[in-house]
Amino acid sequence: MEGKEEDVRLGANKFSERQPIGTAAQTQDDGKDYKEPPPAPLFEPGELTSWSFYRAGIAEFIATFLFLYITILTVMGVVKEDSKCKTVGIQGIAWAFGGMIFALVYCTAGISGGHINPAVTFGLFLARKLSLTRAVFYIVMQCLGAICGAGVVKGFKKSIYNGHGGGANVVAHGYTKGDGLGAEIVGTFILVYTVFSATDAKRSARDSHVPILAPLPIGFAVFLVHLATIPITGTGINPARSLGAAIIYNKDHAWDDHWIFWVGPFIGAALAALYHQVVIRAIPFKSK
Amino acid sequence: MEGKEEDVRLGANKFSERQPIGTAAQTQDDGKDYKEPPPAPLFEPGELTSWSFYRAGIAEFIATFLFLYITILTVMGVVKEDSKCKTVGIQGIAWAFGGMIFALVYCTAGISGGHINPAVTFGLFLARKLSLTRAVFYIVMQCLGAICGAGVVKGFKKSIYNGHGGGANVVAHGYTKGDGLGAEIVGTFILVYTVFSATDAKRSARDSHVPILAPLPIGFAVFLVHLATIPITGTGINPARSLGAAIIYNKDHAWDDHWIFWVGPFIGAALAALYHQVVIRAIPFKSK
Amino acid sequence: MEGKEEDVRLGANKFSERQPIGTAAQTQDDGKDYKEPPPAPLFEPGELTSWSFYRAGIAEFIATFLFLYITILTVMGVVKEDSKCKTVGIQGIAWAFGGMIFALVYCTAGISGGHINPAVTFGLFLARKLSLTRAVFYIVMQCLGAICGAGVVKGFKKSIYNGHGGGANVVAHGYTKGDGLGAEIVGTFILVYTVFSATDAKRSARDSHVPILAPLPIGFAVFLVHLATIPITGTGINPARSLGAAIIYNKDHAWDDHWIFWVGPFIGAALAALYHQVVIRAIPFKSK
Amino acid sequence: MEGKEEDVRLGANKFSERQPIGTAAQTQDDGKDYKEPPPAPLFEPGELTSWSFYRAGIAEFIATFLFLYITILTVMGVVKEDSKCKTVGIQGIAWAFGGMIFALVYCTAGISGGHINPAVTFGLFLARKLSLTRAVFYIVMQCLGAICGAGVVKGFKKSIYNGHGGGANVVAHGYTKGDGLGAEIVGTFILVYTVFSATDAKRSARDSHVPILAPLPIGFAVFLVHLATIPITGTGINPARSLGAAIIYNKDHAWDDHWIFWVGPFIGAALAALYHQVVIRAIPFKSK
Repeated sequence: MEGKEEDVRLGANKFSERQPIGTAAQTQDDGKDYKEPPPAPLFEPGELTSWSFYRAGIAEFIATFLFLYITILTVMGVVKEDSKCKTVGIQGIAWAFGGMIFALVYCTAGISGGHINPAVTFGLFLARKLSLTRAVFYIVMQCLGAICGAGVVKGFKKSIYNGHGGGANVVAHGYTKGDGLGAEIVGTFILVYTVFSATDAKRSARDSHVPILAPLPIGFAVFLVHLATIPITGTGINPARSLGAAIIYNKDHAWDDHWIFWVGPFIGAALAALYHQVVIRAIPFKSK
Repeated sequence: MEGKEEDVRLGANKFSERQPIGTAAQTQDDGKDYKEPPPAPLFEPGELTSWSFYRAGIAEFIATFLFLYITILTVMGVVKEDSKCKTVGIQGIAWAFGGMIFALVYCTAGISGGHINPAVTFGLFLARKLSLTRAVFYIVMQCLGAICGAGVVKGFKKSIYNGHGGGANVVAHGYTKGDGLGAEIVGTFILVYTVFSATDAKRSARDSHVPILAPLPIGFAVFLVHLATIPITGTGINPARSLGAAIIYNKDHAWDDHWIFWVGPFIGAALAALYHQVVIRAIPFKSK
Repeated sequence: MEGKEEDVRLGANKFSERQPIGTAAQTQDDGKDYKEPPPAPLFEPGELTSWSFYRAGIAEFIATFLFLYITILTVMGVVKEDSKCKTVGIQGIAWAFGGMIFALVYCTAGISGGHINPAVTFGLFLARKLSLTRAVFYIVMQCLGAICGAGVVKGFKKSIYNGHGGGANVVAHGYTKGDGLGAEIVGTFILVYTVFSATDAKRSARDSHVPILAPLPIGFAVFLVHLATIPITGTGINPARSLGAAIIYNKDHAWDDHWIFWVGPFIGAALAALYHQVVIRAIPFKSK
Repeated sequence: MEGKEEDVRLGANKFSERQPIGTAAQTQDDGKDYKEPPPAPLFEPGELTSWSFYRAGIAEFIATFLFLYITILTVMGVVKEDSKCKTVGIQGIAWAFGGMIFALVYCTAGISGGHINPAVTFGLFLARKLSLTRAVFYIVMQCLGAICGAGVVKGFKKSIYNGHGGGANVVAHGYTKGDGLGAEIVGTFILVYTVFSATDAKRSARDSHVPILAPLPIGFAVFLVHLATIPITGTGINPARSLGAAIIYNKDHAWDDHWIFWVGPFIGAALAALYHQVVIRAIPFKSK
């Protein structure tokens, strides 16, 4: 019974929610056999000799490749037209980003965990859900995939790509770098907080309810942040996506702001991990 | 067997639907072990000493903060442009409101019940799903979260915020205050009725089917009411959202109509609670 | 074992699909205890004395009321503006219709079966899923709800309502009545076929997989038909919706075409029932 | 135990993901009774005498008919207007394609497997999920259905149909045939990869978690590819859809590019089958 989730103070479990709206993924099961998995070690030497480790990296590469390919191609299709009415519009761009994350998380969750985003990997690493080795490997593969994905889009029409910003993230005219950084921090917080909420209740108990919807709110989180912050930064909240577009676009004004799209998402992811692990799960205060 | 759901009159269960389209959440289970939870007491002193009570309040605060942040930022992105075609459009605003409710209900349902809206809290309180203490605490936290969320949006670009209505709810030119009040009542009725439908069949029985979809129709309800009533009131159906924007915007014409966005949602929520508990569940007529 | 689903010819079950993509609702369970419910009698006198019968009628009334209220209000918001870009657009109208059906089917499925549409009721009646008494009662309640819903929308702004077509279905200029009839037939076929597919696999067996998604494809079917046929007829595929708008709008050109929006949907629903029961389920050929 | 999924190398299972975000469909079940079905034989003579074989073909015909009907009708509604703002827009077209695939996969998955696309049939055939007989039969029925669906749309308004491209796929001005071929390959890869991911974990074990969401990511994959590649080829990724429109439209410039919409999707489907079976599932390396 040591593995069962317990609450911080005596009596806390006595007043569980009466009306937990919604997903089974979130229900508090009081008598069931739920085990918090132990924290992942920083280095797990055995990983490096297992095929599933490399397969996960390949899956992250392919997923991030497809993510950049579809999203940057959609961006190009919109920005090249004077009248946005003839295109899928800015809302269509937001759907492309959010929808791809939905589909790709669905497809790769069982293979690599479906991160497709260094900020997600970083947040889950801070929560000790994966080893440092694996985190670094994932981030490298995500970045390589993103560079290739943006490269293929440029390959279609180099002139359109270079002439319309190449899908690179920059702080829009009229906003300060501080605004951009803030938008990236809060945006990534929303995404990574949703990831934690979706995966938190993952239980190994045989008859537990499965978080079936999970990829959908994760995809929606990405969609929603794009709706709000495309006018400010073009919306990064994914350093691999920002890096891939910046490297292929490769112009000074994209590089000038580039640090924002690493620092912001990593701060946001760290805050989300902190909020979820300390406030929501109260893991540091738990009795073993 | 006292806990099992029974119907008002003899024979009612004999003619259950042959073809209940749809969700498991709604199926009538005739032989299963379903218990209607007892009504929550008005005051539950033990709550105040439990961490889960305060954690729930924090979760409501953060969720409402993120809700206002994303939605008001999306509104600002749309209203500041002359040509709505260059933005995510009015439909994008409706998606922002509905989508955020979907994602946030998914994330916070297991922590606080995922209200994120004083009208929802009020409706569930009327149905005695939570104590008065908890209801008041939630509403205070929701309002504080909303004020902070709108404040951050104003922080990005004060001139845009003040120059374009600040996302505050007002009755549009050409409509009477009665129109606005009616729109808020029916709109909130739809939302709170959906909440009741989604949570109603929540059963503790081990093998019951879980209302997996629940956050999705709740989010869609918000989306749909926005599609219909943005032209009339900008759509409140959430007093915290209206209060947050009004306080940060703080101009007379927003305050003049402000009562509508408390009275309307509370009447709508009360009607939904009445409809669900009396007509649909026939709780007052049930044999114990 | 007589209740188990069997196929028309010997050997048919031997070659079941190897790769049934998708929903559990559709899986062929070969060894499980699945019972096709017996056909509903035409008249079930006991129904008339049960509260659940009247409750179902009330639920259909309220649902159709809310359906017309939200959808026609959305239509009015779009048609009154010269530039559709300032509105949720035609696509927003399609979302309003489809989204409301999704949310309302989710909410009322366990109460009334969630028809909200005389064509659906008619189709399910042809398949003997409900009694004639119940079918007639539902259709009357749906029509009354629709009239009230459209009436409330007219109450907001009579001049806008009457000046912009009142959301009534008419065959668009340039199309023949035959075109309109055809569009209604195929459109309703898609909707009612989806309803049959979603409800078909509903099993009473304890461990069967539940058609959790069901309200979503039903709502999407309505959304999709609107995307395609708004330019032709404004899209009816729901006689109650067409009647409600026609009565409240009450102008000659709306009444001239009105028969199309009853005859078309009823033919479409009958074809869908025929297709599903005869071709897909092969019920007439089944051994008892 | 021979039937259980095993990994390529010793030790691989020891380091399974700690945090598989998302769907139950993807979970690695270590101790459960999962059997990879044996590869389908090329010819299964018994199929030809079973009703379920022909019923599956009819279901594919009807589904592809409805698919082309709704999608091409939506395309015509958009292209005939000068101002796209008065229509559901290009984004609405993408929703029509993706949404129909979602609804139709949901409806036909249990009958025919829900392919509705020769490229999907081809990919699943390469993975030996269905016999050659069945694959050819499906593709023929899909093509016939598509031709009929496009034909009905032309029947509504021949002049609009012929005057606005008839929904036929062509490589847009400014792109090379190579660009079009590449876009079709990657686009179909995304679709067929999603199909494999969704169906892969389909288990016959009684208590396995069901891939409930499956039709949704498949529909989204289609939606997303349309968002990205409508400006390049109009988006095929479905040879039956391209053939149906080409035959009914029947003009030279549509036929000139037509091979792209067969070769591209078949290459993409083959790559997806290869990626999934070899890299993700490592089937060739598995011990029996």
